[in-house]
Amino acid sequence: MKLNTDRLKNNILKLGSIGRTMYGGITRLGFTDEYYKAADLFKELLEDAGLEVHIDKVGNVIGRKKGKKSEKIIMTGSHLDTVVNGGIFDGNMGAVAGLEFAYYIKENNIKLNHTIEIVGFNAEEGGEMGGTFGSRAMMGLIDLDKKGLVEKLGKYNLSIDDIKNSTIDTDRIKCFIEFHIEQGNILYENNIPIGIVSGIVGITRYKITALGESNHAGTTMMKGRKDAFQALAKLAVQSDDYISNVDDILVGTFGVVNIYPNMANVIPGKAEAILELRHMDQNVIDDTIERIKAIADSIDSAKFTFEKIISKKSCQCDKDIISIIDKVCKDNNIKYKTIHSGAGHDANAIAKKAPVGMIFVPSEKGKSHCPSEWTDWDDIEKGCEILFKTLLKIDEQI
Amino acid sequence: MKLNTDRLKNNILKLGSIGRTMYGGITRLGFTDEYYKAADLFKELLEDAGLEVHIDKVGNVIGRKKGKKSEKIIMTGSHLDTVVNGGIFDGNMGAVAGLEFAYYIKENNIKLNHTIEIVGFNAEEGGEMGGTFGSRAMMGLIDLDKKGLVEKLGKYNLSIDDIKNSTIDTDRIKCFIEFHIEQGNILYENNIPIGIVSGIVGITRYKITALGESNHAGTTMMKGRKDAFQALAKLAVQSDDYISNVDDILVGTFGVVNIYPNMANVIPGKAEAILELRHMDQNVIDDTIERIKAIADSIDSAKFTFEKIISKKSCQCDKDIISIIDKVCKDNNIKYKTIHSGAGHDANAIAKKAPVGMIFVPSEKGKSHCPSEWTDWDDIEKGCEILFKTLLKIDEQI
Repeated sequence: MKLNTDRLKNNILKLGSIGRTMYGGITRLGFTDEYYKAADLFKELLEDAGLEVHIDKVGNVIGRKKGKKSEKIIMTGSHLDTVVNGGIFDGNMGAVAGLEFAYYIKENNIKLNHTIEIVGFNAEEGGEMGGTFGSRAMMGLIDLDKKGLVEKLGKYNLSIDDIKNSTIDTDRIKCFIEFHIEQGNILYENNIPIGIVSGIVGITRYKITALGESNHAGTTMMKGRKDAFQALAKLAVQSDDYISNVDDILVGTFGVVNIYPNMANVIPGKAEAILELRHMDQNVIDDTIERIKAIADSIDSAKFTFEKIISKKSCQCDKDIISIIDKVCKDNNIKYKTIHSGAGHDANAIAKKAPVGMIFVPSEKGKSHCPSEWTDWDDIEKGCEILFKTLLKIDEQI
Repeated sequence: MKLNTDRLKNNILKLGSIGRTMYGGITRLGFTDEYYKAADLFKELLEDAGLEVHIDKVGNVIGRKKGKKSEKIIMTGSHLDTVVNGGIFDGNMGAVAGLEFAYYIKENNIKLNHTIEIVGFNAEEGGEMGGTFGSRAMMGLIDLDKKGLVEKLGKYNLSIDDIKNSTIDTDRIKCFIEFHIEQGNILYENNIPIGIVSGIVGITRYKITALGESNHAGTTMMKGRKDAFQALAKLAVQSDDYISNVDDILVGTFGVVNIYPNMANVIPGKAEAILELRHMDQNVIDDTIERIKAIADSIDSAKFTFEKIISKKSCQCDKDIISIIDKVCKDNNIKYKTIHSGAGHDANAIAKKAPVGMIFVPSEKGKSHCPSEWTDWDDIEKGCEILFKTLLKIDEQI
């Protein structure tokens, strides 16, 4: 299989230059001018590659080529938005790989059995309306009755009707294959170019509050203090130790910590944190939180409360698609590893309505969401080869 | 000794009503309208008690009665400002006790050998220009060349000349005796009405920064994480354990904690804290910080830096004054305990220029700087008796 790797690379860099910041990364948040500049360029390129292209009401770019035998859609692509000062591969790479597939079938005069759609999604990275907004809108997964939705949409000049008009007939989707950087360090550490994704972890977040007793930091002796920060610190250290020893999948992070009154001469009376747990198996998450609650109960210096604020279920990639990618890797003698995804993706939303598969390539040192996010061009080329051959193989199944 | 305890109580309550908040406490920050309202009332009351009174350029209220034999000044009083939503005893009580002493000598027709000054200080509780501002100005301890001072003073309509004009000839001070609530729980826990203060602790503050590596909280496995918050939490827990076991004087508090970027799905790359240590002996503080630095060195997941941001020396109360208070307590058969002060006081500033003594009364449950700050009226009465007899005894020494 001969790919035009120069064009692939140039298009990743070209799209990756839109939203470039003085800090070396790119900032292309969903719904911003930068996003739409990238969406317009992507539309132009998809048209150049021979597709019929439209940008739907919520900003997703969709390029389509009708199949000769089936109207069922084989969909590929990824998101075009980025985090603040993010890298050029996260999302961008998968969208451009889809574009390159369109060029590939055009230039090699391949007539696919199925309709192919190359998609660049809007607002995957989150924000006010939650992550994977574009793909959730397309799949009809937005709760249109949710309180405050109309007001939030209004800020982006969007209406409920715009979401309705962006929702497609999901029964027509044969499958969605997303090509993405790993964002972790498993492939990089093991020097393996391809990850076949088994599924995407579930995410549960708890707001943890430690209530102690605020007091004068100079006159209150150490004995008998009810220092809420010290209590939270103990909980964090013991929880981290527990989480680290469950298995190779579970991760837990105290990413948000605020203490009150946060003054040098006052013993903190209240400390709040958000603990996020991710795992493929919700039972493991639930067992872990029970264990952490027991640790909290053993800490005398504060009273802890736990409030579940987010609970997203894990999703499984389609077994048949996994088998196909597996076979493609073996047939082409390319090393791979079956891994789970610790991050959410558009594939997550689509999996609720159709079979999905994901192909990962290594992130140097596991870094992403930062200017130093990097994936070797060789790995991207290998990933494209696996992606294209997988799409072609799926297309054979009629 | 017969005190007018009703007047004493009424004046504490009357002054304690100025600045009352809807949260049940009083807010009477230095230099505010509320502060000057209290200062004006205090001036009126001191005049009523027979003193010549003026409010100096930085807002300290000074009531004076000339002595018959010596122009050396025996000074007593405390501060009239409060923290935000503080109590009615902290500062207020000592100022009103001084006022009551003026009434006492007037009504009992006592002619003192020495000039007596009853003082209500401004801005003891800190703020932009640091704590004990009023007493430091009076003692000539403000560094007038300090960068930014002119601008800060300007915000309060003050000039360098105003500070100079508030500074007195400190050689004329024979001594300063401050009557104050303990703000700790030693007297309360031990059910002892009087504390004779041996000295005021030194305060050292370090800004501690933990630098780890920010990364995706979902895709970064537990092993090998460089979570700056976890590193800080470990340091805090181990430091607290160490500090708690040094002696009965040392206290250490992580009162300020901020982590970055403080997002639920990002491993904290940076965590900052302010650690405050208080002790009478600077060597203990210095040894402790060395020990804590060694703990920091043993934590692999972050690189720590320590920056000393405040270092206030401890101060010793005058041995002769301590002996006098001690004798007064014994002669009057009042239980007492010699204790250090964990909090700073105006006495701290004055001790740099003249002998000082301090008398403490119990704070219920050790609480202060809050609406529930409380001291029993009986204890206040006992404290006043000790204060008055101490002042009279010192006055005998000519």
